[in-house]
Amino acid sequence: MAPLAPRSGDAVFASVERVNAELFTLTYGAIVRQLITDLEEVEEVNKQLDQMGYNIGVRLIDEFLAKSNVSRCVDFKETAEVIAKVGFKMFLGVTATVINWDAEGTSCSLVLEDNPLVDFVELPDTCQGLSYCNILSGVIRGALEMVSMKTEITWVRDMLQGDDAYELRVKLLKQVPEEYPYKDDD
Amino acid sequence: MAPLAPRSGDAVFASVERVNAELFTLTYGAIVRQLITDLEEVEEVNKQLDQMGYNIGVRLIDEFLAKSNVSRCVDFKETAEVIAKVGFKMFLGVTATVINWDAEGTSCSLVLEDNPLVDFVELPDTCQGLSYCNILSGVIRGALEMVSMKTEITWVRDMLQGDDAYELRVKLLKQVPEEYPYKDDD
Repeated sequence: MAPLAPRSGDAVFASVERVNAELFTLTYGAIVRQLITDLEEVEEVNKQLDQMGYNIGVRLIDEFLAKSNVSRCVDFKETAEVIAKVGFKMFLGVTATVINWDAEGTSCSLVLEDNPLVDFVELPDTCQGLSYCNILSGVIRGALEMVSMKTEITWVRDMLQGDDAYELRVKLLKQVPEEYPYKDDD
Repeated sequence: MAPLAPRSGDAVFASVERVNAELFTLTYGAIVRQLITDLEEVEEVNKQLDQMGYNIGVRLIDEFLAKSNVSRCVDFKETAEVIAKVGFKMFLGVTATVINWDAEGTSCSLVLEDNPLVDFVELPDTCQGLSYCNILSGVIRGALEMVSMKTEITWVRDMLQGDDAYELRVKLLKQVPEEYPYKDDD
């Protein structure tokens, strides 16, 4: 049987079960508020959001692979495009733009202009330094680790901190070659 | 101008911004896990989830009224039907059944057979007594309070506790007559 063709972000998004974005946004806001109350230090909240995202990412990758028909990407450039165009679309209903590649093709930025996580959010002055969307970087890091890519992901721009967009810098640290218990031509 | 006709749950759900249900489910799971770690006592977790839900409900009611074109319900029976058929559909993509009215028409049950909050969830033995979906009862309580209905909402059946469905008992405690600064026939 010929392999299935990868599906567009729109097609995948249309085919998955969905819930109301505002409910999601408010629920996510409730987590962040809870963490701020419990942990007090903004740095600790950032770490915890990242860790939560990581735990989610290691599970979401299965749904992503099952629903998107995306198989192995040729290189990290393709991986980044797939995250931006299919991954973001499939989970959040928006797409990202990939820019600013380094010469080696191992670092790039994902730029989001629309971000459902932050609708209606305003940070009080006491939350300076809060990476409100840190769960997202954690999700990507966790998901990529499940397909053997170790990455470092940092926020470069954050509209809640006054920037003009959301920009995530994604750096590939190490790619572990996948080992299969079988060969393709067996 | 004639008032707009109320829209069906399906039509409303199709028109709102949505995100992936699995992302929502896993994110909600991350909250519950966090609360269990932080608060330790299951009873405290239940209370906190209810409170989070309440805070979300008092905000979601605006989106509900704006998108659904539902205006004032004739009585609490109609209110319950609207929650079951339009409210649940609009936010979670599922509908509930309304059963077991008391003679006064002030208590009924909402029964959910499909519940996106609990996909992939299994409770460990240490979580006996956890009302995992308590955020939902809080949301309904908060939303109804914004339209002048004080309610008490309790879980009667919970599939995570071994029951055959999710059943919420909704009891109308007090209905504050709405006062308008104008009369209809002014």
